[in-house]
Amino acid sequence: MSPHRPHRPPDEGGFGWDEVDVMAYKQEGEAPFRHVTRQVLFDHPELACQLRYFEVAPGGHTTLERHEHVHAVMVVRGRGRALVGDAVHELALNDLVQVPASTWHQFRAPDDEPLGFLCLVNAERDRPQLPGVSDLAALRSDPERARFIRH
Amino acid sequence: MSPHRPHRPPDEGGFGWDEVDVMAYKQEGEAPFRHVTRQVLFDHPELACQLRYFEVAPGGHTTLERHEHVHAVMVVRGRGRALVGDAVHELALNDLVQVPASTWHQFRAPDDEPLGFLCLVNAERDRPQLPGVSDLAALRSDPERARFIRH
Repeated sequence: MSPHRPHRPPDEGGFGWDEVDVMAYKQEGEAPFRHVTRQVLFDHPELACQLRYFEVAPGGHTTLERHEHVHAVMVVRGRGRALVGDAVHELALNDLVQVPASTWHQFRAPDDEPLGFLCLVNAERDRPQLPGVSDLAALRSDPERARFIRH
Repeated sequence: MSPHRPHRPPDEGGFGWDEVDVMAYKQEGEAPFRHVTRQVLFDHPELACQLRYFEVAPGGHTTLERHEHVHAVMVVRGRGRALVGDAVHELALNDLVQVPASTWHQFRAPDDEPLGFLCLVNAERDRPQLPGVSDLAALRSDPERARFIRH
């Protein structure tokens, strides 16, 4: 990425940028997810964090997972819902969400529009963990969480 | 900041958040600037970076300065212009701007709308430097830069 030049979304109002690749969210089969893309907006060797943009297409969802590292999220496109720990939250444009360490989380887009969000993480971080049978049982013990989660 | 709850802008389409204080950009008299506010969106002890939101009101400008740490910027409201190093750039919504180490930079809003941008920095970073007489002379040696800068 050229350091001086702004990177303009190629389509007006769109969320793609010159010289930023639209990547698969994860490798197929690595973990359950649906209709998610990933773009790394900033990954400078002198920055201790990465800033990524994730877009969940209508009807899609990210992986239900947890990890030791913290997520700092800002919604910049559309709306959706998120499970963070015990609760399901409605998400609107410009909302901020902090995902603490070791906290189950999942983001879902509604059926009629995409959900796009920035996600800030430390450059050095641990790998996500998927829920096991007992984790899923605990998550599904609450009816609202049970309806929300996709796995 | 509550870790689980999204922080909703109190005014629809606005750029203020529950539990995020709108602060002065800098102390008055510390450095030249005009019509700028600062909000720290994420400053978690386990994150190696801070994410801040700066808003430059119409006609305003940030300080002309440089430092060793890198800035990663994304425009999220309005439009404007930025000096980064040798060149003045037009800025539009969703543009990304990387400010390398030791590089003079300044952001300006147009006269008719605000410029709001996210700025990602390392939590541990050096203090900004202001330009001296010879720095200003070098910056002003180019007519476009000379017209742009405010100091």
